[in-house]
Amino acid sequence: MEQQKIIISGERLQAALEQFANFGRTENNGVTRLALSAEDRLARDYFCSCCKALGMSVEIDDMGNIYAKLPGVEEKPPLVIGSHLDSVKKGGRFDGVLGVVAGLEVARALVENNIKLRIPLVIANITNEEGARFEPSMMASGVLSGKFDKAAMVKKKDVAGISFEEALHSIGYAGKEESRLKEAAAFLELHIEQGPILERESLSIGVVECVLGMVCYEIQITGESDHAGTTPMDMRKDALFTANNLISEARQKLSALDKDLVFTMGRMNVLPNIHTVIPNKVVFSLEARHKDPLVIKQVEEIILGLKHSQANEGCDIQTEKLWDRSTVLFDEKICDLLEKSTKSLNYSYKRMVSGAGHDAQFLASYIPTAMIFVPSINGKSHCEEELTTWEDCAKGVNVLLETVLSF
Amino acid sequence: MEQQKIIISGERLQAALEQFANFGRTENNGVTRLALSAEDRLARDYFCSCCKALGMSVEIDDMGNIYAKLPGVEEKPPLVIGSHLDSVKKGGRFDGVLGVVAGLEVARALVENNIKLRIPLVIANITNEEGARFEPSMMASGVLSGKFDKAAMVKKKDVAGISFEEALHSIGYAGKEESRLKEAAAFLELHIEQGPILERESLSIGVVECVLGMVCYEIQITGESDHAGTTPMDMRKDALFTANNLISEARQKLSALDKDLVFTMGRMNVLPNIHTVIPNKVVFSLEARHKDPLVIKQVEEIILGLKHSQANEGCDIQTEKLWDRSTVLFDEKICDLLEKSTKSLNYSYKRMVSGAGHDAQFLASYIPTAMIFVPSINGKSHCEEELTTWEDCAKGVNVLLETVLSF
Repeated sequence: MEQQKIIISGERLQAALEQFANFGRTENNGVTRLALSAEDRLARDYFCSCCKALGMSVEIDDMGNIYAKLPGVEEKPPLVIGSHLDSVKKGGRFDGVLGVVAGLEVARALVENNIKLRIPLVIANITNEEGARFEPSMMASGVLSGKFDKAAMVKKKDVAGISFEEALHSIGYAGKEESRLKEAAAFLELHIEQGPILERESLSIGVVECVLGMVCYEIQITGESDHAGTTPMDMRKDALFTANNLISEARQKLSALDKDLVFTMGRMNVLPNIHTVIPNKVVFSLEARHKDPLVIKQVEEIILGLKHSQANEGCDIQTEKLWDRSTVLFDEKICDLLEKSTKSLNYSYKRMVSGAGHDAQFLASYIPTAMIFVPSINGKSHCEEELTTWEDCAKGVNVLLETVLSF
Repeated sequence: MEQQKIIISGERLQAALEQFANFGRTENNGVTRLALSAEDRLARDYFCSCCKALGMSVEIDDMGNIYAKLPGVEEKPPLVIGSHLDSVKKGGRFDGVLGVVAGLEVARALVENNIKLRIPLVIANITNEEGARFEPSMMASGVLSGKFDKAAMVKKKDVAGISFEEALHSIGYAGKEESRLKEAAAFLELHIEQGPILERESLSIGVVECVLGMVCYEIQITGESDHAGTTPMDMRKDALFTANNLISEARQKLSALDKDLVFTMGRMNVLPNIHTVIPNKVVFSLEARHKDPLVIKQVEEIILGLKHSQANEGCDIQTEKLWDRSTVLFDEKICDLLEKSTKSLNYSYKRMVSGAGHDAQFLASYIPTAMIFVPSINGKSHCEEELTTWEDCAKGVNVLLETVLSF
């Protein structure tokens, strides 16, 4: 007979998630908990008190990251479970906080069942993943992994002119650089999918193999601004008409490239944007994501080719790369371990990719890392409607617990 | 032998136009002379002093319109030459002011040559044609012709919260309602074309037969706002993609309708307008102008048909008519007279339409009215680059003088 598995308490998990949602809950049951805000401080304080109640030690580093440690039999590099407590403005109750609460529930299950792990378990709350108050996003994991310069980051200001370091001190979470997460046996992040794939395929768990590489361009079209009533059609240089041609052309070519490619023209500004004036300038963004760098290369060739489009209608076309990032592959052994745990729990799952960015992608540069996704209803995230069933939340945490136990 | 024609002094016309351009001249040789501003007051004062120096009487009505009268042999309804002294922000040195200065130069030529007309000649400066400070445009001619309600108009405020009536009083140009232009033998307006047609065809004079009818719609597309990185292409409801389809569809159908139709999507706003978020809303304007109401009717059918476009890609499409206006036909006899004068001066010309709106279109409802256009270099207007050659300005004024003499 198979051994009875230790599983976490779904009710307590739900209660914990609801408790955290009280720190910044919005009118429509979402959450506004910007990094280093009063609400973030309340959530951090509550998290620390919960960890201390379990006998865990709590350390804070110079970026405000919190590490709560449950000692292991051996004092070796820890197994880390973590995510972020900050949210976007009018965000949801699951994004980020689920991965932190998951660590807490795993620790609670271990303590309740008197299980002492071989190596320490650390629950990490990484500061300012969202970048909603202080840009860029994934700021603290960027500093931890050496991608971002700390001196520049702490000077970043919010719209009110308050700097990151001022805000960090004011909520009492400025710690020491020597407390930073320097090495670990593994970093595990449970997160909501923020996309519709698991729900569409009626699956509970996604074992995330990578974070997609992406590229983002800005396309600028310059035409001539003339009177909408007095300029014959054949004498116009209408930047909007040209933009429309280019979007059609790019869309047709990109669609033919690869079925897994996603691309978006999310931002578009028309100037002077007056109904009686022919637009003389249109600027739009075009970002695309794919696992394979060769596909991204083809995307860039298509975008650069727009400059020479036959459908320019007399307008000038410029393209500028705003940024790109390479695909981050997660640790294969950790992925296999997560998959094995999922299978052992008989949860439906698939191996998948992450189109969104996460702290895990930066930490993966120096810690064996992988992620677990649970379904987002209607794929919604970064909005008050963000929803994951309590059952799926619990399944995600159980995969983590099982993985921790088998590590 | 043909009688020697009386023609105006081109040098004095140029000097007068440059003098008026001093009232609000911009860094780049344009003009900012918003209605009822300090600059407008200076221009009005100078205009009145010039008229009085010619022995003309000056009356002001309750909308601030100025009427300078040169008596005729008979005290009958006058022949009126007029336009507007106000400009848009960073506008040009010709739009409006040319039509007022033209009247002044015609009066000067008559006085210098001791010619007394059979009926009085009135030079009119119509208040706030541009609507750049107080909306709507053509405000005072709208009140004169009964299209606009005076009580509502004088309450209109500028961005600083100053009302039209406050501004009118503060510059000292609030006159009496009984001074309004009630009847006239004719209203003649000389204006720059504000389009490229005369220049393209190397013509000096346009005899304007009508102001084009137009219709303006707003098209609103509602999709779903999802994460640009996590939402597969086949699960998107991208409002920008749908807008792109609709613009292509509308453009193709409208282009096939009539070669003289002009149409413009001048305003377009994308929401939430973030490069990493699929747009859930796009709103764009579509305005079209044509002389023939049947063509405008077909345009409206095409726009309304967009709601049922097969290329909606799952988005909702709504159309709303913002406004329309019918084609205003000018007085045929006055047009013929203007054409005859032009021919007698051996100027190259064509009969044409006006795509832009002018005070003349409102006054035409109760006064036999027509307009003369002179070429705009590169079709530019409402900008500092606005330019018409001094020679063409003089030709336009000479057509008016010849018409006045032959009236």
